[in-house]
Amino acid sequence: MTLAEQVSALGLGDIEAVAARIAPDIVRTPLLPWMGDGGADRDLRLKPENLQPFGSFKVRAGLNAAHAAQQAGGKTLATASAGNFAQGLGFAARRYGLPLHVHVPDSAARTKVAMLERLGATVHAHDFAEWWRIMETRDAGIADATFVHPVSEAAVIAGNATIGLEIAQDWADAETITIPFGGGGLSTGIALALKLMGRKVEIIACEVETSTPLTAAFAAGEPVTVDRTASFVDGIGSLRVLGEMWPLVERFIDRTVVASIDECAAAVREAALRHRLVVEGAGAAAIAAALRPEFAGRKIVAVVSGGNIDLGTLSGMIG
Amino acid sequence: MTLAEQVSALGLGDIEAVAARIAPDIVRTPLLPWMGDGGADRDLRLKPENLQPFGSFKVRAGLNAAHAAQQAGGKTLATASAGNFAQGLGFAARRYGLPLHVHVPDSAARTKVAMLERLGATVHAHDFAEWWRIMETRDAGIADATFVHPVSEAAVIAGNATIGLEIAQDWADAETITIPFGGGGLSTGIALALKLMGRKVEIIACEVETSTPLTAAFAAGEPVTVDRTASFVDGIGSLRVLGEMWPLVERFIDRTVVASIDECAAAVREAALRHRLVVEGAGAAAIAAALRPEFAGRKIVAVVSGGNIDLGTLSGMIG
Repeated sequence: MTLAEQVSALGLGDIEAVAARIAPDIVRTPLLPWMGDGGADRDLRLKPENLQPFGSFKVRAGLNAAHAAQQAGGKTLATASAGNFAQGLGFAARRYGLPLHVHVPDSAARTKVAMLERLGATVHAHDFAEWWRIMETRDAGIADATFVHPVSEAAVIAGNATIGLEIAQDWADAETITIPFGGGGLSTGIALALKLMGRKVEIIACEVETSTPLTAAFAAGEPVTVDRTASFVDGIGSLRVLGEMWPLVERFIDRTVVASIDECAAAVREAALRHRLVVEGAGAAAIAAALRPEFAGRKIVAVVSGGNIDLGTLSGMIG
Repeated sequence: MTLAEQVSALGLGDIEAVAARIAPDIVRTPLLPWMGDGGADRDLRLKPENLQPFGSFKVRAGLNAAHAAQQAGGKTLATASAGNFAQGLGFAARRYGLPLHVHVPDSAARTKVAMLERLGATVHAHDFAEWWRIMETRDAGIADATFVHPVSEAAVIAGNATIGLEIAQDWADAETITIPFGGGGLSTGIALALKLMGRKVEIIACEVETSTPLTAAFAAGEPVTVDRTASFVDGIGSLRVLGEMWPLVERFIDRTVVASIDECAAAVREAALRHRLVVEGAGAAAIAAALRPEFAGRKIVAVVSGGNIDLGTLSGMIG
């Protein structure tokens, strides 16, 4: 079965089963009415997934993927991740007693690598191109390890879908959801849950100006390779939409909004000042998108995907 | 009726009614398993009230007090507060359409005063002694204003009690709760709810070394005036336990723990790094207390009362 077929085979009962299984290990995040500057002409609420253990939504997917791997007889896990997914999987691997190898780009934030080591994972650093090759091929040269892809993995998408379930439960009237777009796993999962619950909700994928693979793919009608500039927004922004993800992304995402670095930095600051939340650049992109004039009058949720920002960087932004 | 008698007259149904009435305007805060350094030998969970609108638990009490004042025919509100309660009451006053006068000590954090003005309150600054006089006498020289005391007020204590209700609902096994001690309204409210629910929970009031009026009162057997040094921990630390509060405090609080400024600063940093939470000094004191060796093995909740810390101060601590 292709990934798209596996995802299409998921039913609401599957997502509810995942939610029930991971419940003891995750935080049931509330929706927080936006208190920051701007956006007074809309009903904007944040879904603060930065409150999860290890600071991002990825713990949901990690728990589900580790469970699935163990059910399939896996004894060792491996993944390629800029950090957040690896931390979520690391938390899950420790929970299930499985060793974990993590492949990271050498640009990964110090805080993320330190946290992985704290979790007991073995970290392997690669230059970005080699890291991307591992992400595309799932081949990291480690025998007997079950490779868990951070995005193109049905168990990951089903884990992410639990966020959509919670949004639907907590706010029946939500009309629009802005979601940081890394590889599409988060957007696809959330959209899937809402669709399975029969909700009509507009799904906005948020990119940052330094790398816009999805906007480019929508323009070209297929995945294309884009340029990428490093910035403090390091949780999203890849070189290209993965081929396996493209059919799902095309089906589930309505359109993109591209946030500027300045908008992301402003959102980081407002989140700290008005919400007492430490938000990473990717999460800030979803807030920035939700504040755009085009969403005036909307009932809109911004998914704050994570809070793994270097504290020195944060300090410079808020000081 | 004395305040103690008013509080004693409250039943579980009263607290539940408050919880139901304020529910649409507050955040149902989750419990967050502690992820920071230390405390691995206990089950510590944070109750992040810094996620409330305007950054502290005070919005619960403010909503209930404004409702009570309006029910009693009040047209204008006044209060004396270092900031957090005033913000909570300010939010509530706007919600109920009532003008508000706020008396603050001239040492109040810039961020707090700015937020009060943003809420439409009229702010009056006084030196600390005069401010304390207003707090004790409820006389601020403004005619026709209903004075809402931030601590010694049954409606405030009933509002705070909703936190105890939530803790009891979310964690039936909680054994100990550490709570920042400003005037005793938060500790008393939380303890009251747990008592009404038939739970046996140890209530620890947390002070900071720069001002320890409750520790001194317990030692003397009655409220005594203490010295006070200004510090970044500005949400707790008064000159003296209020006479009206003493019978309640004596009945509901088991004992105090005094945190050092260094412990509070470390907790602020850990909360930002591991929980992606901006925590003010008072909230940090509850975390610091809960990490003390004496609580090894415990099921313990630290009530993170608020997140209203100056971002410049925070920046210096995490940078």
